[in-house]
Amino acid sequence: MRILLVGAGGVGGAFAAIAARRDFFEQVVVADYDEAKAQAAAAVDERYVGVRIDASDAAAVEAVCREHRISHVMNAVDPVFNMALFDGAYAAGADYVDMAMSLSRPHPESPYEKVGVKLGDEQFAKAADWEASGRLALVGIGVEPGLSDVFARYAADHLFSEIEELGTRDGANLVVTDDDGNEMFAPSFSMWTTIEECLNPPVVYEKAREDVDGGWFTTAPFSEPEVFDFPEGIGPVECVNVEHEEVLLMPRWVDCKRATFKYGLGDEFITILKVLHTLGLDSTEKVRVKGVEVSPRDVVAACLPDPATIGPKMTGKTCAGLWVTGTGKDGQPRSTYLHHVVDNEWSMREYGHQCVVWQTAVNPVVALELIANGTWSGAGVLGPEAFDAVPFLDLLTEYGSPWGIQELEA
Amino acid sequence: MRILLVGAGGVGGAFAAIAARRDFFEQVVVADYDEAKAQAAAAVDERYVGVRIDASDAAAVEAVCREHRISHVMNAVDPVFNMALFDGAYAAGADYVDMAMSLSRPHPESPYEKVGVKLGDEQFAKAADWEASGRLALVGIGVEPGLSDVFARYAADHLFSEIEELGTRDGANLVVTDDDGNEMFAPSFSMWTTIEECLNPPVVYEKAREDVDGGWFTTAPFSEPEVFDFPEGIGPVECVNVEHEEVLLMPRWVDCKRATFKYGLGDEFITILKVLHTLGLDSTEKVRVKGVEVSPRDVVAACLPDPATIGPKMTGKTCAGLWVTGTGKDGQPRSTYLHHVVDNEWSMREYGHQCVVWQTAVNPVVALELIANGTWSGAGVLGPEAFDAVPFLDLLTEYGSPWGIQELEA
Repeated sequence: MRILLVGAGGVGGAFAAIAARRDFFEQVVVADYDEAKAQAAAAVDERYVGVRIDASDAAAVEAVCREHRISHVMNAVDPVFNMALFDGAYAAGADYVDMAMSLSRPHPESPYEKVGVKLGDEQFAKAADWEASGRLALVGIGVEPGLSDVFARYAADHLFSEIEELGTRDGANLVVTDDDGNEMFAPSFSMWTTIEECLNPPVVYEKAREDVDGGWFTTAPFSEPEVFDFPEGIGPVECVNVEHEEVLLMPRWVDCKRATFKYGLGDEFITILKVLHTLGLDSTEKVRVKGVEVSPRDVVAACLPDPATIGPKMTGKTCAGLWVTGTGKDGQPRSTYLHHVVDNEWSMREYGHQCVVWQTAVNPVVALELIANGTWSGAGVLGPEAFDAVPFLDLLTEYGSPWGIQELEA
Repeated sequence: MRILLVGAGGVGGAFAAIAARRDFFEQVVVADYDEAKAQAAAAVDERYVGVRIDASDAAAVEAVCREHRISHVMNAVDPVFNMALFDGAYAAGADYVDMAMSLSRPHPESPYEKVGVKLGDEQFAKAADWEASGRLALVGIGVEPGLSDVFARYAADHLFSEIEELGTRDGANLVVTDDDGNEMFAPSFSMWTTIEECLNPPVVYEKAREDVDGGWFTTAPFSEPEVFDFPEGIGPVECVNVEHEEVLLMPRWVDCKRATFKYGLGDEFITILKVLHTLGLDSTEKVRVKGVEVSPRDVVAACLPDPATIGPKMTGKTCAGLWVTGTGKDGQPRSTYLHHVVDNEWSMREYGHQCVVWQTAVNPVVALELIANGTWSGAGVLGPEAFDAVPFLDLLTEYGSPWGIQELEA
């Protein structure tokens, strides 16, 4: 296996560090728009090299793949580049792995009721080509989407006879402090992506509403607030509906009546996102500012600390998980939260990467190892739900990061 | 009188339109960084010409003054350019009028307790030069500062024997709606300046605390919230302390125990300003964004509608005024609100300019007319309080925009 890792930011750097401890691949080519950043990330292992890439240019991606005889393209850049990487990998004859899916576009008339172009639609539209070529595009295998999709498959195979709701619930109790010990605002994940997913109309799946584009419909941002009590000391966090890939992926492979994604944003973050939207600072359309042109959302991201660098100033845990309700294998009502918690103190000590990017990056490494050794195989555009969950969860535990099950009152 | 009007934005455009109806000057040279904008504003009257200027360059300002034999420089640009215009006017032998004062810099160690460099300090430092040359720099004659400073002098001369507090209180009930009739966020005044004044530590004057730099000290932003009931149907608005020139100007010429400035920002605006500060988007330091450098605050301003263009979409009234408490001329306790209200519907119909910029611009036109006819004269760096208030208030009324007095419970 010869991997092209595109993106040497927070998640790309953590991917490089995690994979460096494994022996399932021959080479990792770390590619970034900033060549020095790529080379810095590649310095972690002698099987790595760092190169420059323009991830917005499918032809450039194909050229880098051919030059380095790449077998698998690993996408670790902002999802705005998904299609260029997806198409570039296909053109080069490489398989493809990402941690998100192609972006959505809201319904032109009823953005908060109906779906427009859904997350992944552009990729699924090309699924037949990938399948016919016997090639694999594994999409949405990060955190999140990724691990909760694996949990969905596990729940369907081993825990439930009938599933009411597959409810992804992610939350954290992370705090970042500045040099003077004051709490500061510093998102642990790409602000560009956070704005994208939180301000887009959240998507919900309900099987009974297959009249509306296969059961998928939208709501207003930040809808259906709910306090979810996260395990391992994180505690209760207010969660709201957010547009997320799990809702589009799970119902394609796992039978369920409803699929949702709620994210524990918390009050302050919700206020910030609302203000950015009010001021138009979430926009990706360039504005002219004293002789130069910039996208306001890029400026917002540029003003915040790089999520890759805040690890040493951060304390707390992050939790990704899936709350499944329905009927257990024993015929009784069941409510179960399958989850994976990473303590920042642990990930910083063990890997030198903060817990959110570490948790995101570990899943594609595990998946690529399963693909490399033939445990996972397939062709087409597939989500994590399309594969057996057990070897994935076992290997994740072997990586030193176990998952858990919590039974809730059914 | 030959006026160089620097700045053809909202206030500059309104100044041009108001002055065009008067005959106290020979020529107005409208100058802007954007020459087309200057020429558009100059088209309002045949005594006007439009030229390009770099307001950040004192030598360029001097050159334009000399070329057009300017007698008075009228500053209608962001206060960041104040010193270049102030110095350029002096170098050219012209008098100078502005609607703000040179900017402050917070105290390096105790920004929310002590003043650092105060508003106007840089200008007052050069007062002796102006006085020695027999030249006048009239600072802070807009709204606000400006009219409330005139009110302060009026109150001291005609209404009060002893003044407890000179409390400037400005508020509005303006609403801007988009083409679909939905209320939208669109500040009626320069967002750059609003951020500057609202996020800087508010300054308060107390005579008894003359230990702390002449009685001036600072608090945290948005301090001492107070609901003030504005007249003429505007009603109650939550007001908070904001750094403003009146607090620095009034105690220099009018004896008072305390001077404050509170602005009716309202909850939404306060939240927005706090979020901008949390994210560092209020910063004027340039950040690097995908190959270009921009100041985040400039980007915020660029994302919002130009305040000069929102007039037709706006309804409501704006009120500037001074709440004076103390002992009346009759020896009895007195509490009086002197105020000036402009209805946007009126200013749009009469002048084609929205009420906030119209109210700001009318005051320097009135002042320049008083200077032109010799009613106001002086040398040095002077605030509006240094001149007799009565002719100003009479001429303002003659302009079609009367002021009012409201007695409150003392």
